[in-house]
Amino acid sequence: MQNIKAYMQQTGQQARAASRIMAQAGTNAKNCALEAIARIIVENSAQLIAENAKDVAAARANGLDAASVDRLTLTDKSISSMAEGLRQITQLPDPIGEISDLKYRPSGIQVGRMRVPLGVIGIIYESRPNVTADAAGLCLKSGNAAILRGGSEAIHSNQAIAACVHAGLRAAGLPETAVQVVSTTDRAAVGELITMREYVDVIVPRGGKSLIARIAEEARIPVIKHLDGICHVYIDDEADLEKAIRVSDNAKTQRYGVCNAMETLLVAQDVAAKVLPPLCRIYLDKGVELRGDEASRKLVAKMKAATEEDWRTEYLAPILSVRVVAGLDEAIAHINTYGSQHTDTIVTENYSKAMRFLREVDSSSVMVNASTRFADGFEYGLGAEIGISTDKIHARGPVGLEGLTSQKFVVLGSGQIRT
Amino acid sequence: MQNIKAYMQQTGQQARAASRIMAQAGTNAKNCALEAIARIIVENSAQLIAENAKDVAAARANGLDAASVDRLTLTDKSISSMAEGLRQITQLPDPIGEISDLKYRPSGIQVGRMRVPLGVIGIIYESRPNVTADAAGLCLKSGNAAILRGGSEAIHSNQAIAACVHAGLRAAGLPETAVQVVSTTDRAAVGELITMREYVDVIVPRGGKSLIARIAEEARIPVIKHLDGICHVYIDDEADLEKAIRVSDNAKTQRYGVCNAMETLLVAQDVAAKVLPPLCRIYLDKGVELRGDEASRKLVAKMKAATEEDWRTEYLAPILSVRVVAGLDEAIAHINTYGSQHTDTIVTENYSKAMRFLREVDSSSVMVNASTRFADGFEYGLGAEIGISTDKIHARGPVGLEGLTSQKFVVLGSGQIRT
Repeated sequence: MQNIKAYMQQTGQQARAASRIMAQAGTNAKNCALEAIARIIVENSAQLIAENAKDVAAARANGLDAASVDRLTLTDKSISSMAEGLRQITQLPDPIGEISDLKYRPSGIQVGRMRVPLGVIGIIYESRPNVTADAAGLCLKSGNAAILRGGSEAIHSNQAIAACVHAGLRAAGLPETAVQVVSTTDRAAVGELITMREYVDVIVPRGGKSLIARIAEEARIPVIKHLDGICHVYIDDEADLEKAIRVSDNAKTQRYGVCNAMETLLVAQDVAAKVLPPLCRIYLDKGVELRGDEASRKLVAKMKAATEEDWRTEYLAPILSVRVVAGLDEAIAHINTYGSQHTDTIVTENYSKAMRFLREVDSSSVMVNASTRFADGFEYGLGAEIGISTDKIHARGPVGLEGLTSQKFVVLGSGQIRT
Repeated sequence: MQNIKAYMQQTGQQARAASRIMAQAGTNAKNCALEAIARIIVENSAQLIAENAKDVAAARANGLDAASVDRLTLTDKSISSMAEGLRQITQLPDPIGEISDLKYRPSGIQVGRMRVPLGVIGIIYESRPNVTADAAGLCLKSGNAAILRGGSEAIHSNQAIAACVHAGLRAAGLPETAVQVVSTTDRAAVGELITMREYVDVIVPRGGKSLIARIAEEARIPVIKHLDGICHVYIDDEADLEKAIRVSDNAKTQRYGVCNAMETLLVAQDVAAKVLPPLCRIYLDKGVELRGDEASRKLVAKMKAATEEDWRTEYLAPILSVRVVAGLDEAIAHINTYGSQHTDTIVTENYSKAMRFLREVDSSSVMVNASTRFADGFEYGLGAEIGISTDKIHARGPVGLEGLTSQKFVVLGSGQIRT
């Protein structure tokens, strides 16, 4: 325990020192490092797979479930996709140093804002080794230093990837300590990481809800967090029903286990009889279990009764809750009560109702006539994302490079004084 | 204690409910409320002064120092300046609902950002009753609900101002609970306020460093904080010495007790002999005590020896520490080591050095050839400010209406789905 504290303090000090150098690093140096890391990762595939095999064997021996073992396993394909992800980050514009809104003030000074890195980012994630490379790449490009703490099941894989990251940083003349991967699996290291206020500026947890909730509870540093994704589609009585069916189908069934999939469908009562039967037939054909309120169940036979709990549940599975509402007001009230401020869509042709939905639904993404599945850094044009924030402070929605930066004020004068 | 908890929980619930209404309130309604509050405050001057007199009498009886009694005291003049402050807020553009950066993506959806309120703002401040009106006004205009907790010495004054605020909100058809002023002086109320994560979105402490440090330590909610203002002026060896003297004089002596006043002067060694003697003569004539390093003291006789502690001290008084540095690198290193990330200025005619200073000094405001005293919401064109943030997360520098808002993503489609 004493040793873990000292180790993490040293890690923090090194990260703080590296962050000062990274903040000044030029775009070329950062891109060179990203390309070198990508190249070195591919060159060392065999080594990475050998180290990963130790983790996989231990995970199997410890009875880890098949899906988790799958996420843990590195293959030639997943390694080249890691490298490709890093190369894509080199293509993103460098946000650092950008000056915006420079305007003259009556005093004669010009005032604007310059984008700067946050400093040191702590990232805590589960046993997906690809996150080590992704997160390192985003922090590096945004001029930050990173302390990465991956799941203990991936310790050998993460250390092997860390060695590649360090070699790439060295090759570009940047400090290795710009990306540090915590080398102990002791949980006390997380406790230190999320409370070292002098060395860490923000924590980004990536993983299951319980991990994130625990970190948010215990952290003494700002956390960019993403809890539930209880996303809604509301089919308005003035919806184009063809769009409604297409969007509602896609939002639920294009992928089930993702945070931006729809979990609850709301339908205006005036169109419920028309839209629910054909839409629910699609769901049932695809094997989606339906749980509805009384009004929905009168229209669709194969529907279980939804409980209050269903409205609050992120299934991440082929299950959908369905509710008939009087209209827009009831839909907005339902979403603001039961939703998780992630992503919600209205399907309507009515301009005023679309505008009200955009304004009044209190979620990080609000949409009109588009699938909730679009809530994603790539689809929004941000490039890779470090996560999706359902918070309001600092960052909301998909968090890309810009979410890892801040803005300071710059004042350009010619000798002005205040009178 | 049990009762305080219940009282604060109820206050929080009411604020959360009011925040939903305020988020939808139109600009006209919000401006009407601000104007009504301003009018009612002036109409009730006599009543406010009578209530304030109780606080002032108690403060004197308790031996409060003269400066604090002065800040506590309401006069006809300070009341009309409170009203004027509220009227100025009506003139600021309403940030809420503004959509920016709306762009088409390859999928055919349009993605942009809409500015939204943070929700519920908790403000904790010392015994300056005018803050009650200022803070209420800024929170109201930015579509937030506010819970205000002023110093216990101002309890009667704050409750009287709260009554005016409530009357103004009522007159505009807005909920009174949009601005709640905590009516107990029990300190446990602060402990509740800064930990009610379900009801409060951000805490803004205003006051002395010890108050702010304690709140930041104990809060379980994000805090927009402002600790020290250890501001620097660096006179470069390529400075225009006339500008250097004008800016350095103004930065220190225009006002002493403010956070954006200079506390440490750094001078490049090549110009120290030329600039320090005339500049220090100005300071000494104005009664400023000088504390310098060895090199400075060789040039100016009436200078005490500065200690390591001086570089870390915010005097807020006619005291200045002075240090001769080798050049830009040493100046930046000094500022990033001893400064408080508030406001720092370089005086130079050299373009490259100006650019390096802007980029490399890690402060919320960085300036070239302008007095640090310009670091202010009004001077920057933000309008009134709720405070100055020396943090990096969410808001940096002067925090005006925009700092009390966030941005959500809006997606406008025409039936697009993800493939």
